[in-house]
Amino acid sequence: MEAIEQRITEQGNKIRSLKSSKADKEVITAEVAILNALKAELKALTLSDPAAAAAAAAPAEKPTKGDDKKGKGAFTLKNAKGTKDYTPQEMAIREKIFSTIVKVFKKHGGITIDTPVFELKEILSGKYGEDSKLIYDLEDQGGEKCSLRYDLTVPFARFLAMNGKEYQNIKRYHIAKVYRRDQPAMTKGRMREFYQCDFDVAGTYDAMIPDSEILRVLTECLTELELGDFTIKLNHRKILDGIFEVCGVPEDKIRTISSAVDKLDKLPWAEVRKEMTEDKGLDPKAADLIGEYVQLKGGAELLERLYADAKLGANTRAKEGLDDMTLLFKYLDVLNVTRYVSFDLSLARGLDYYTGLIYEAVLEGSAPPTLANGEKARATVKKGTDELDESTVGVGSIAAGGRYDNLVGMFSGTNKKGQPNLVIPCVGVSIGVERVFSILMQKQKKEEIKSNEVEVYVVGLGGVSVEARMKICTELWDAGIKAEFAYKLKPRTQNQWDVCDRDMIPLAVIVGGDEIEKGLIKIKDMRSKDESQKGGIEYPRTQMIAEIKSRLAQL
Amino acid sequence: MEAIEQRITEQGNKIRSLKSSKADKEVITAEVAILNALKAELKALTLSDPAAAAAAAAPAEKPTKGDDKKGKGAFTLKNAKGTKDYTPQEMAIREKIFSTIVKVFKKHGGITIDTPVFELKEILSGKYGEDSKLIYDLEDQGGEKCSLRYDLTVPFARFLAMNGKEYQNIKRYHIAKVYRRDQPAMTKGRMREFYQCDFDVAGTYDAMIPDSEILRVLTECLTELELGDFTIKLNHRKILDGIFEVCGVPEDKIRTISSAVDKLDKLPWAEVRKEMTEDKGLDPKAADLIGEYVQLKGGAELLERLYADAKLGANTRAKEGLDDMTLLFKYLDVLNVTRYVSFDLSLARGLDYYTGLIYEAVLEGSAPPTLANGEKARATVKKGTDELDESTVGVGSIAAGGRYDNLVGMFSGTNKKGQPNLVIPCVGVSIGVERVFSILMQKQKKEEIKSNEVEVYVVGLGGVSVEARMKICTELWDAGIKAEFAYKLKPRTQNQWDVCDRDMIPLAVIVGGDEIEKGLIKIKDMRSKDESQKGGIEYPRTQMIAEIKSRLAQL
Repeated sequence: MEAIEQRITEQGNKIRSLKSSKADKEVITAEVAILNALKAELKALTLSDPAAAAAAAAPAEKPTKGDDKKGKGAFTLKNAKGTKDYTPQEMAIREKIFSTIVKVFKKHGGITIDTPVFELKEILSGKYGEDSKLIYDLEDQGGEKCSLRYDLTVPFARFLAMNGKEYQNIKRYHIAKVYRRDQPAMTKGRMREFYQCDFDVAGTYDAMIPDSEILRVLTECLTELELGDFTIKLNHRKILDGIFEVCGVPEDKIRTISSAVDKLDKLPWAEVRKEMTEDKGLDPKAADLIGEYVQLKGGAELLERLYADAKLGANTRAKEGLDDMTLLFKYLDVLNVTRYVSFDLSLARGLDYYTGLIYEAVLEGSAPPTLANGEKARATVKKGTDELDESTVGVGSIAAGGRYDNLVGMFSGTNKKGQPNLVIPCVGVSIGVERVFSILMQKQKKEEIKSNEVEVYVVGLGGVSVEARMKICTELWDAGIKAEFAYKLKPRTQNQWDVCDRDMIPLAVIVGGDEIEKGLIKIKDMRSKDESQKGGIEYPRTQMIAEIKSRLAQL
Repeated sequence: MEAIEQRITEQGNKIRSLKSSKADKEVITAEVAILNALKAELKALTLSDPAAAAAAAAPAEKPTKGDDKKGKGAFTLKNAKGTKDYTPQEMAIREKIFSTIVKVFKKHGGITIDTPVFELKEILSGKYGEDSKLIYDLEDQGGEKCSLRYDLTVPFARFLAMNGKEYQNIKRYHIAKVYRRDQPAMTKGRMREFYQCDFDVAGTYDAMIPDSEILRVLTECLTELELGDFTIKLNHRKILDGIFEVCGVPEDKIRTISSAVDKLDKLPWAEVRKEMTEDKGLDPKAADLIGEYVQLKGGAELLERLYADAKLGANTRAKEGLDDMTLLFKYLDVLNVTRYVSFDLSLARGLDYYTGLIYEAVLEGSAPPTLANGEKARATVKKGTDELDESTVGVGSIAAGGRYDNLVGMFSGTNKKGQPNLVIPCVGVSIGVERVFSILMQKQKKEEIKSNEVEVYVVGLGGVSVEARMKICTELWDAGIKAEFAYKLKPRTQNQWDVCDRDMIPLAVIVGGDEIEKGLIKIKDMRSKDESQKGGIEYPRTQMIAEIKSRLAQL
């Protein structure tokens, strides 16, 4: 024990020295982890020694913020930037989220596929507009050039292009990790590795029918997850393109101007306008005209206004989009989804591949903070780091998606006339489950989350052998009962009770040396405050399984 | 329709031309996929036209084997080498495998964590011996050097080293993908991206207790998966090291000689001996002595023979290993696992980090083919490709693992005396679930696997509106019933029945225009051959949910 105390002292000195020399924060974190582990080790050794226990109970060190200079030669024990581990408690919450979402997806006929984590680099090329720079590439180790998937949509389209014969139509869901070299904002759930939950309908159908069911699926998911009120912003690429056309945006600037509009939920109009005119060379008059349209929002009644708009109503593309929206609002009424949606002309979505309806769900009360002048706070990067200052960012959109009718065709090659060999229209939604996760984790007390499912703990008393406890567990396992025993030859009695409490195990089977010989065991309800059961109720060993099964059935 | 026929002709010509010019096989495959998609499109369009339907029913083209020369400039529509997509039917089997395994893991108190797909490169360095060359690296895009995880064990040890305070002991399972730049052998389930199912026990316990439970967990998993008979080969690193010591292997050659022994399940002894003496410079006398030991196998009785061996019995390391094995066999008896194990001195396991018990499960009847001379066939690489010739490889080991007491310490840093700052002994097993998958897929007929869970299909007759069908689905969804309807304004009646058959949907709710007005619907049991229900039994609309729930409860 003195040896450990000595090491704790040394480790503490080391950390203080690292801090004063402004060492890499990550190096300090790693050293602090070691210190905390040593303290835990000491604590475990000294539970019977009050003085030592008091020393061990001193609060764990926290790393102070250091500079981000790289510590030379030091082994940094950490996760890669923008990635994290999930603890058993966190996993319990995550699995609950997944099962809630999958239940909704299956209710709507969803079936699942899986695609690899990496794709040939050329598959991802030219699909993500300005965000392509965020794609992770694998090192060329003498084979193909590959990249980690950026989303689940492009791999799905690639799957359809390769298997179009068998999957002319499919409602597929896919829950898997995707990768983006973005600025991490951990507490808001924005990571470089994160899960997406996608539901997409592929196939040639009549207009807006699958689109409206996707919105119904989304409202069911967000409702079942109990995240509070939400709004689904809707817009249509053809309406947007029509707006750009009538405002005088040249055809070759439409996508880049659309990207600028997409930033309106994070930046004030003045800055977006500046990006359009100064960075992207748009005529200021065109920008001002756009500015008038993109501040419009409302419900189905906004459609009338846009149809009546002299310029827009006469634009062919806009007209197609408005007709789609008319149909959509009709279907959303039938599906009881209307109350969740807002037709919002400022919604543009960054991705290149959308061709029709687009949408984005936002939680109420999670928008970025509003400044005194009424403008939205701008996301800023913390000085001296490349992490976003999280106080300036809202949770943002919790789900998004849209229609992409040409993506499969981009993979199918073209015929002599330049038309794609295969067209499978698609519409889908992606739920940002990491954001859901960070919201739900904040609502839970970590220690109240049960991460194991053990039903019975086998407690040995009075020198009963490990084989005897093992034998009872074997009988329980053979009967399909979830059971554990202490991995010690002579476990302390109190430690065994402590495990029952810590892991919230409902039942204990208690065996002593004498009882084993007599063919008896005791069963104790660990959650009941009923004092009459005392050290447990005695049963013949032969009745153990039946009694436990009957008690578990009543839980 | 003629346009499509024209495109089919053109595409056929293109493929014939590619084949005759010996184009890249993958290019041809992609072009054939396009052709098949066109044919399917034509078929869909021509179901009412018998002549056209006959043409469309012509068998789909299959790509012939071409050379592997890279087609220049061609867009190759394919998965990255060694990776594959999983179809909905395959996913249904895969999820059944996972749920079977997870059920066993949870029965033994397992809890799950998740770690990222990539780790800092230095975390993986020096952990995998000769296999380190198979690690995938990410391109350095101006950040940290990262690699894709090679297994789930090293990331678990890294997790423990970082969180040792909170997780001094944990039974964790983890089911996730890992990455190895190995030679793919698709039909045997060996891929570059594949799932592992790991169960590990971390913590300081009395000898061989968790080790024996791990073997019990493994036997339960393999039994529940119904893979047929299997054997778990057991050995102990300390016994092996003792053997190497008494045979005269220099200390610095022990790991590399151990790697050579590990190949004995794939190569005959003569070749392994050659590798030891010629490639690794071992004294041939030492090799011959090793040869005598490593052909020994048996049960607990082999222990007596080894204890009695004059040289080995006197070796300290071997003695420790033998004592462990004695204890293990005692516990395996209690756990009813003895009949599945074989103590096999030729088992070495390739990984560097094992320190004690090691094991590997092999399915009976899946060993590599034996040649006429009694030697095992050697895995060979197909000429002109870098794929393994699968006829020369068995499914091989289906699960493997062992004890690794020092891995966590490798991450914790060392104190002034060179001892690790944190020691958490671990033992675990990894189930090769892809191999399980390829065995189980071979047993199933693909078309008999139901991949969706839809309970009710809403069939519209006689010009009933899409809104009316949508409205009924909404009622069903609101009641938690899994339901679908056709995404067409005017779906053909036969097409709707076809969907019920294809997707094995048990119930249909049938609505016609007249019935809607009268507040009536019909329900039909789609699986029953009962002719008396004819077009379905009529119910008031208000009783629909109750009737369906009652019918579903009886399924």
